[in-house]
Amino acid sequence: MTTPPADLLDTWNACGYYELVGMRVTHADEESARIEIGITPAHLQAYGTAHGGVVAGLLDAAMGLAILARLPAGQGCATVEMKLNFTAPVLPGDLVGVGRVLHQGRRLVVASAEARGPDGRMTACAQGTFQAFSAEARS
Amino acid sequence: MTTPPADLLDTWNACGYYELVGMRVTHADEESARIEIGITPAHLQAYGTAHGGVVAGLLDAAMGLAILARLPAGQGCATVEMKLNFTAPVLPGDLVGVGRVLHQGRRLVVASAEARGPDGRMTACAQGTFQAFSAEARS
Amino acid sequence: MTTPPADLLDTWNACGYYELVGMRVTHADEESARIEIGITPAHLQAYGTAHGGVVAGLLDAAMGLAILARLPAGQGCATVEMKLNFTAPVLPGDLVGVGRVLHQGRRLVVASAEARGPDGRMTACAQGTFQAFSAEARS
Amino acid sequence: MTTPPADLLDTWNACGYYELVGMRVTHADEESARIEIGITPAHLQAYGTAHGGVVAGLLDAAMGLAILARLPAGQGCATVEMKLNFTAPVLPGDLVGVGRVLHQGRRLVVASAEARGPDGRMTACAQGTFQAFSAEARS
Repeated sequence: MTTPPADLLDTWNACGYYELVGMRVTHADEESARIEIGITPAHLQAYGTAHGGVVAGLLDAAMGLAILARLPAGQGCATVEMKLNFTAPVLPGDLVGVGRVLHQGRRLVVASAEARGPDGRMTACAQGTFQAFSAEARS
Repeated sequence: MTTPPADLLDTWNACGYYELVGMRVTHADEESARIEIGITPAHLQAYGTAHGGVVAGLLDAAMGLAILARLPAGQGCATVEMKLNFTAPVLPGDLVGVGRVLHQGRRLVVASAEARGPDGRMTACAQGTFQAFSAEARS
Repeated sequence: MTTPPADLLDTWNACGYYELVGMRVTHADEESARIEIGITPAHLQAYGTAHGGVVAGLLDAAMGLAILARLPAGQGCATVEMKLNFTAPVLPGDLVGVGRVLHQGRRLVVASAEARGPDGRMTACAQGTFQAFSAEARS
Repeated sequence: MTTPPADLLDTWNACGYYELVGMRVTHADEESARIEIGITPAHLQAYGTAHGGVVAGLLDAAMGLAILARLPAGQGCATVEMKLNFTAPVLPGDLVGVGRVLHQGRRLVVASAEARGPDGRMTACAQGTFQAFSAEARS
């Protein structure tokens, strides 16, 4: 598989967490995956910037979808671990996460992702390890 | 400061992200901080388990509050970076995150956190670096 | 297996890297593994403290041996990834790394480790992911 | 400062750890830093591949030098934390680490690095956080 079929992206966008935080996959192919979210007051922590969980969820998803777009149909991937640096406060507005595969092993895959705000400035970057597994397609 | 005043915890629990995901600080003192969340279908990804962003947000908060409980009044702390291992799928039900300080430097603080489900099994563990800063109290 | 046989520790202590940096396993059982090194001028970087590579090697080994002590005979483990915080400068003198298993899955194992100097102060802490594999015993 | 003066590289190459493991900086400018090492039996662990400490030291140095090349003269940088993925076994032969700056803040800098063997294959990748400090030049 190269580009996931549109209904696979629909499946992801329809799951609970994506709806809860208002995040959606807008693109995924062999090169990269792109997730977008509009940061609102509902995403903020006590200091007025987006909570780390929102950013972590965005980058986790961007890496996971970039990997999924490379796996054969019927395989899924789970996050083994991830590491994120928060490099600038995330204020209300659009936030885009782009994930890429750094290394694809037999079962373990290493990916990276960056989040950028409306001005193109990087607000966070991540590197993570994922595990491919056999899964029934859920479309 | 040792134990944060109750109204400080109230401030955290009232912020947008905590309300959005239904997470709340239930305890924070010099030893540890405890955050609780009831995982529901709204927190799930496409495979039926809690999204990494939910778990990351819980552990980020648990570490941050454990640090905040040790800082002088008027100081805040921001996450510089964090690394999480996901060790078991998180299913609907209660999830508790407990954070502790591993090393308190002048400006940088290192903390760890664990998340456990209803059966006490560890579902994720994290290690992160935080930066203390001067902040106006927000109570 | 619980405690690795003495000749297994001998095998590790005899390998090239351990001899090069002067590091040795002094203990490994189901609870923890302990690695010791005497930091000398040969381990220092340009600022007069031990190079991160020395500390990383110590903690990597402490985690790996703690895991190995829990695996059945004939299995080995490889580091998938590790994350280290450096919390204090490491000066010439004894440095001890202690590793523990945080989570043992079927193939992937998560461990942590701490390094402490002669005064008992923590100088670094790590969390890492390892992969078990079948290996011929090398004693 | 942009390119570090040759005598600064000489200072780094002359320090104890670089001599012990046989590693040397061959290039450092605003874009990247490059460290090289010839892996020999002295760098191996019990399974016959380079010990994680050797690879971690290489990537730590590659990130640190890439940062140093951007700092004003008289400033140094210390590793706050780093995370490494090991993506392929490192066998005897040449190993090259290249580091780059991902984000340069006022005091904290985020960098990444990759190690590649003779065939150009990536054997490890890292993301780390560093702290700039005032240091007397040591040339």
